[in-house]
Amino acid sequence: MEKTSEFLPRRHLLAGGAATLAGIGLATVTRAVHAQSAPKSVPSYVSWKDSSSLIVHSNTTIETKRSAFGTSVITPSDQLYIRNNLPAPDSAIVADRNAWEVLVEGVKTPSILSVRELKEMDVETTAMVLQCSGNGRGFFPTKPSGTPWQVGAAGCVVWSGVPVRVLAESLGGVSAGMKFMTGTGGEKLPDGLDPKSVIVERSVPLSAMSDALLAWEMNGQPIPLAHGGPLRLIVPGYTGINNIKYIKRLAFTAKESDAHIMSHGYRLSPPGMKGGPGQPSVQEMTVKSWINSPSPERGSVKAGKVQILGVAFGGLRAVAKVEVSIDGGKTWGLARLVGPDMGQYAWRQFAFAAKLVAGDFILTSRATDVAGDVQPELRLENTGGYNNTSWSDHAVTVTVVG
Amino acid sequence: MEKTSEFLPRRHLLAGGAATLAGIGLATVTRAVHAQSAPKSVPSYVSWKDSSSLIVHSNTTIETKRSAFGTSVITPSDQLYIRNNLPAPDSAIVADRNAWEVLVEGVKTPSILSVRELKEMDVETTAMVLQCSGNGRGFFPTKPSGTPWQVGAAGCVVWSGVPVRVLAESLGGVSAGMKFMTGTGGEKLPDGLDPKSVIVERSVPLSAMSDALLAWEMNGQPIPLAHGGPLRLIVPGYTGINNIKYIKRLAFTAKESDAHIMSHGYRLSPPGMKGGPGQPSVQEMTVKSWINSPSPERGSVKAGKVQILGVAFGGLRAVAKVEVSIDGGKTWGLARLVGPDMGQYAWRQFAFAAKLVAGDFILTSRATDVAGDVQPELRLENTGGYNNTSWSDHAVTVTVVG
Repeated sequence: MEKTSEFLPRRHLLAGGAATLAGIGLATVTRAVHAQSAPKSVPSYVSWKDSSSLIVHSNTTIETKRSAFGTSVITPSDQLYIRNNLPAPDSAIVADRNAWEVLVEGVKTPSILSVRELKEMDVETTAMVLQCSGNGRGFFPTKPSGTPWQVGAAGCVVWSGVPVRVLAESLGGVSAGMKFMTGTGGEKLPDGLDPKSVIVERSVPLSAMSDALLAWEMNGQPIPLAHGGPLRLIVPGYTGINNIKYIKRLAFTAKESDAHIMSHGYRLSPPGMKGGPGQPSVQEMTVKSWINSPSPERGSVKAGKVQILGVAFGGLRAVAKVEVSIDGGKTWGLARLVGPDMGQYAWRQFAFAAKLVAGDFILTSRATDVAGDVQPELRLENTGGYNNTSWSDHAVTVTVVG
Repeated sequence: MEKTSEFLPRRHLLAGGAATLAGIGLATVTRAVHAQSAPKSVPSYVSWKDSSSLIVHSNTTIETKRSAFGTSVITPSDQLYIRNNLPAPDSAIVADRNAWEVLVEGVKTPSILSVRELKEMDVETTAMVLQCSGNGRGFFPTKPSGTPWQVGAAGCVVWSGVPVRVLAESLGGVSAGMKFMTGTGGEKLPDGLDPKSVIVERSVPLSAMSDALLAWEMNGQPIPLAHGGPLRLIVPGYTGINNIKYIKRLAFTAKESDAHIMSHGYRLSPPGMKGGPGQPSVQEMTVKSWINSPSPERGSVKAGKVQILGVAFGGLRAVAKVEVSIDGGKTWGLARLVGPDMGQYAWRQFAFAAKLVAGDFILTSRATDVAGDVQPELRLENTGGYNNTSWSDHAVTVTVVG
């Protein structure tokens, strides 16, 4: 019951409202969602995760339950989602974290640097929304291939590492003509395949280096292997895939990587078309929000004053305001931003107090960033099911009892 | 070797410097500190804690290792210290967290409210340094009774709950003549003793209610039983004991509690005198900082550029600046504040880059708050070993190798 609108035509949803919703096929929807979130055990390599907070889609795709998100800004590491394109390298690589080495190219003095050396160079700490490019894919009625994430392939995480701009300066600066920052992951590649077809290598515009980190710490602890430790490229404001785990090479390049995951993967292709170099890459995140509480998973809601709670972020830009609707988007009220502001790349918690009587309500939220961009009502349809920021898709229907 | 100055006369320390230190009794000091931090297993009620980050003094007194603190502002729950005056109540009290009830008195309409009701009233989120009153006691050469905490009976934690001021307003306001906010813990009291002699009940000035919370969430998750869940009184800027766990009664009172822990416990009594009502209570925290890295526990330091990292907080007030010394306090340089500012009650991370040659260095830090109060060189001597903010006590001696 957490999400209903995905199986209903939008016009119907908006015109009909909650009373109508209750009558049509809700049982089917309920079963479908429950099947999707049926408890599977957390795989052993992340046995330290809080399984009660998680939906295990597969060994390498695990999401946070909407009902598990609290209001403390930072997502605890044991609740944070997992999405790995390849299995994590052997844990031997975190036995001596300081010994991990990264090759830096496209600078005046290309160099191999150890984590130990990076740590003495400089340190910066940044809170950032880490979000899988496909978060919200589960709300696409077209059921794109890929994990049907709802809201929980995202979290707000604190990273510490050396600023990439400081690293580049210390190596004499970026070479002339370079337009991209390209990171290469250190996963072990499957035998017998063209490396370019499987390697995790992504390019982002050179401008993204200004706030990027080579990070060794996440939420106060050495980055867990499952999250890319000992060293991960952090590109604030960019979707998860651009934040390269086990980074072994950081290169400033004139061209984008020709790895398949860059040239064909993570592209916003029109419905029915495959991804390719002609289509835009999934990179910068845009303004988005959703409600975490109340939700059907949290149990019944009693009539009276109800605190509607959620998160909002702007991707590259800070959030300016959040509005909440209790009638599926017909009318809106201004929410209050709650708790510490951890910077432009972090999410903000919001709260909206509503007096609710008995009945069904469609709760949703709509964020606006500091540039005035407003979270859209409708998703951008695309084959891969990427970048879903639709406020109507992210609505929750709750039943209030007298 | 983490701490040496505690066993040495201060004059000697400051005049002699590191070279002299190395000659006199350092082996003895090393043994004493190692004995203190010999690994004990984490007790079963906190088996979810990260034992590698902790020093287990006893079942109810567990501290974070200095070397375990990262640079992500927030202390992860599994690394956070434990100090409980009484054993935690039975875990049955967290089976239905929303059902926990608190009696509120000293307001126009005294009431019993459940956590469920509190959650719908309002929500605020505050980052706050939680610090045991006796943190730093281990640096008192007088060896006061009580746990010999070093730096790790402290952490920076995010709390969510209802503001006490909102709660009081909703119950008609605080009654006339009330001067204190008094919280009573819900621990089970030992049989056969006068309850007043053992109950955890503390009063703070009424003014402290302005930013206080009745909190149900810590670091993004329901407050663990060991940390006071399902409901804890949070009084930002006040030492740990004033943040009542399992709170069952919150009263606005004309007088301070007459419980022994208030009338005689946690008093700043002159050396040799017992605590009593005539001496100041341990309540508000004052400006303090310490270095977490490098430290001997983290292994050798290589000559060259070294990032000196630590934390600084002002208690009730924000930190304005932090200075770092590499020569035991003879000379100082301005440190850089790093990472998100999570508000006046949180700590700030700081970094100071130094070029170190081979040899021994006494590293220490000195914070100044926004009111201009400077962290003192010397501790305030007192029988209980409370409120140690001395920058010389918190120094670390590190050996740099060529």
